[in-house]
Amino acid sequence: MDGMFETLFSPGLDTGAAQPLNEQLQAMLRQAILERRLPAGKRLPATRALAGRLDISRNTVLAAYEHLIAEGYLETRQGAGTFVSADLPDAALQIRAGPDAIRREALPPRAAKRPLSGMPALDQFPVDIWARLSGRVWRGARESQLLYNDPAGYLPLRQAIATYLEAARGVVADADQIIITSGIQQSFHLLAESVIPKDRTIILEDPGYPGMASAVRNLPHPVRFTPIDEDGVLPPTPGGKAGLLVVCPSRQYPLGHTMPLKRRLELLEWAKKEGSFLLEDDYDSEFRYAGRPINSLQGIDGGKCVIYSGSFSKSLFLALRLGYLIVPPEMTERLVRHRAAVDSFPSISNQILLTQFIEEGHFSRHIRRLRAVHKKRLSIFMTSAQKWLGQHFDFQKADTGLHVVAFCRAGRKLPPDTALSLIAGKAQLGASPLSESYHEAEARQGLLFGFANIAEREIDNRLKELAALLSQETGF
Amino acid sequence: MDGMFETLFSPGLDTGAAQPLNEQLQAMLRQAILERRLPAGKRLPATRALAGRLDISRNTVLAAYEHLIAEGYLETRQGAGTFVSADLPDAALQIRAGPDAIRREALPPRAAKRPLSGMPALDQFPVDIWARLSGRVWRGARESQLLYNDPAGYLPLRQAIATYLEAARGVVADADQIIITSGIQQSFHLLAESVIPKDRTIILEDPGYPGMASAVRNLPHPVRFTPIDEDGVLPPTPGGKAGLLVVCPSRQYPLGHTMPLKRRLELLEWAKKEGSFLLEDDYDSEFRYAGRPINSLQGIDGGKCVIYSGSFSKSLFLALRLGYLIVPPEMTERLVRHRAAVDSFPSISNQILLTQFIEEGHFSRHIRRLRAVHKKRLSIFMTSAQKWLGQHFDFQKADTGLHVVAFCRAGRKLPPDTALSLIAGKAQLGASPLSESYHEAEARQGLLFGFANIAEREIDNRLKELAALLSQETGF
Repeated sequence: MDGMFETLFSPGLDTGAAQPLNEQLQAMLRQAILERRLPAGKRLPATRALAGRLDISRNTVLAAYEHLIAEGYLETRQGAGTFVSADLPDAALQIRAGPDAIRREALPPRAAKRPLSGMPALDQFPVDIWARLSGRVWRGARESQLLYNDPAGYLPLRQAIATYLEAARGVVADADQIIITSGIQQSFHLLAESVIPKDRTIILEDPGYPGMASAVRNLPHPVRFTPIDEDGVLPPTPGGKAGLLVVCPSRQYPLGHTMPLKRRLELLEWAKKEGSFLLEDDYDSEFRYAGRPINSLQGIDGGKCVIYSGSFSKSLFLALRLGYLIVPPEMTERLVRHRAAVDSFPSISNQILLTQFIEEGHFSRHIRRLRAVHKKRLSIFMTSAQKWLGQHFDFQKADTGLHVVAFCRAGRKLPPDTALSLIAGKAQLGASPLSESYHEAEARQGLLFGFANIAEREIDNRLKELAALLSQETGF
Repeated sequence: MDGMFETLFSPGLDTGAAQPLNEQLQAMLRQAILERRLPAGKRLPATRALAGRLDISRNTVLAAYEHLIAEGYLETRQGAGTFVSADLPDAALQIRAGPDAIRREALPPRAAKRPLSGMPALDQFPVDIWARLSGRVWRGARESQLLYNDPAGYLPLRQAIATYLEAARGVVADADQIIITSGIQQSFHLLAESVIPKDRTIILEDPGYPGMASAVRNLPHPVRFTPIDEDGVLPPTPGGKAGLLVVCPSRQYPLGHTMPLKRRLELLEWAKKEGSFLLEDDYDSEFRYAGRPINSLQGIDGGKCVIYSGSFSKSLFLALRLGYLIVPPEMTERLVRHRAAVDSFPSISNQILLTQFIEEGHFSRHIRRLRAVHKKRLSIFMTSAQKWLGQHFDFQKADTGLHVVAFCRAGRKLPPDTALSLIAGKAQLGASPLSESYHEAEARQGLLFGFANIAEREIDNRLKELAALLSQETGF
């Protein structure tokens, strides 16, 4: 056996490894051929000689050779032995740089990882019930549960959602108009890609949900931002031809205004004149702690130009990844077919589980319990926050949602809110920087404090700790 | 109370309905205001009079009025009573047509619903084990299972996939290069949208998987089709600057060729010259019933210009909706951030369940069992098919995958394969029309028969039944 093979086969095979010896030998030879250490046409050692050299059985060598022959790396010539194939294209065998067919424009800076502020009281989630239903969904499984399903989502879940939203939010919709998605971001992306003409402008609230601003980035549509006032978003001023205005009338994100009826009707009037749709992002409307919620914009409009988006991320838990989109009937076909093309259909088992959770009354009970718990936590939070942090922040009165807005007091030399958010994290407080919700409008400094996912007895301690950390930081 | 209200309130409220009386009253008034049956400024009946007229308590009327006042539909004037608000914008109150901001180009014709051909033996799926793990995933749930998770997917699942694919397919990848998706269609769509420059051409095999052709339809990239021969897809001829070529080297879809090494190396050489990526769609590589699979194109290339896509749709079940994409390291960041923007992150519980299923050895056991069962069913299928349908079809020899290709015999006057597929469905046979896999190339007529999801004792009966149906149809 020549020196080329002596080099190639030292230090030899690993008899202790999990990988079978014939596969080790194959990998060694394959690699050597691809890296041209064994050139095309090179004759391989006879099987008996190689078996002796490597101290393995001849059958092992035979198996490796045969496999590489089948793959085309090696070839036999009648009576002459085994050779590295002559007709492997040369260029493919060389080490090379990656393709240039890759987008290389710079990515926008990534936000620092911080605890999220918009969490419900996760300690109240009935994990035991969920676990029981989860096992049951599978114990009784029929074959249909394994197969292709409706790209619009599981029909009984869509029916349960229609019934719930009609009662809770005055939403007017048949199950046929509902499409189950993985949440607001997929809802929005599917909608914009399939339904809204690419030359129509998509308009977002400013300030508004930063996740929405990320979601528009890869769309072909022109995008612009539009300001809000105390009543929520203002009807956009003329400019471009609008296709979709994204609004949060129940509770403006991040500032928390509930949009009064008059403004709702003005927006509908604007949409009608403009020929634009409104996307009503009703992201946490379940959580109103005083009074009754105002009916959805979709219900006022009768579902003609308002598309309604909701999810179970806030009312159950974020990792469930089930949301929905309610669209006018003439939009359904286009949207569902686009979903089928780019995401097939949503996983079925969690949809069945959630349907049973709703139908057996667990969902309503859970929401009622959360409302009571959140209300109590909000009240404790506001008192403690005023006491410990009132010198640094103006806390905005809140009676809905999952976060409290705290504006930085102008006179105080506080660090930027992005830094404050990280400091709050050290005190185990989820607090998003307010400034990240601003796009073109002048950013205000502040924090969006999550209050709902902290046990009552912890709230005061954590706010006190944040106050201590801030006083170290600022000298006050 | 004037006539306007008499008309409005007949036939009255429904005391048997689930909806509380005060909400029924609200809805009635709200609708009348929006439809202008009650004009702005109109004075409402006094609460006592209305309560008497409707035979309900005065408090119910008060509650309804107060709610509508809070919403802005009604207003009170000191000492004068309750009125329909004067300042509701007029135009919003009229019934109108929907917005024009909706794409109106015609949708491509929708394929008829037929049984799918590419199914594994679902009767072999260990539902009991899956049910047990499913309950366990939730019984031991920690809070992290409810929270935001990695947009690339659950890390232990990515690690389990990396380990499995290295052993089974010679795939070279760290868990960091793996992104969990909902399957090939999402994998492809995310990749094309975020990574491949929009001016680069996407090239698909012809014939090829129709789902892939649907998935490109909404992309901004130029698209072209490229022919195949006996060795699979040919290196594309020049034309446009290519960005991505989608290939199935393990088993060409639909024709089933396994690509030999020489062609693999030629494709890699083409990709290198062109600066293009290859997307290796390894959709059912687990199912080879003779010999050992050839290593993946990704492994030969070392993961430089080959992106690897796989899923658990065929090896476990379609409704699981878990697949993965394995990309070169420099691509990861862009892809994961796009996923985060348009689909947040994948639902966590099925990922945990699947990880445990793999780690505890159930997955390998299941695949081994399926291989044995499929092999047996394939053999029975081929014998019976030849016997009953040999006069109508040429059955192509198969030793991989989940379907058998049957070309329509030229001399026979068979209906088009789209019709044949529906006839096969009547005999409870999943058989996709071959012609639907062709795009620009001249379509061949035939059926792709699923053989794996039919109990052994049923195979002969169903084929016999199809033969009977065909002889009714064709007179042979």
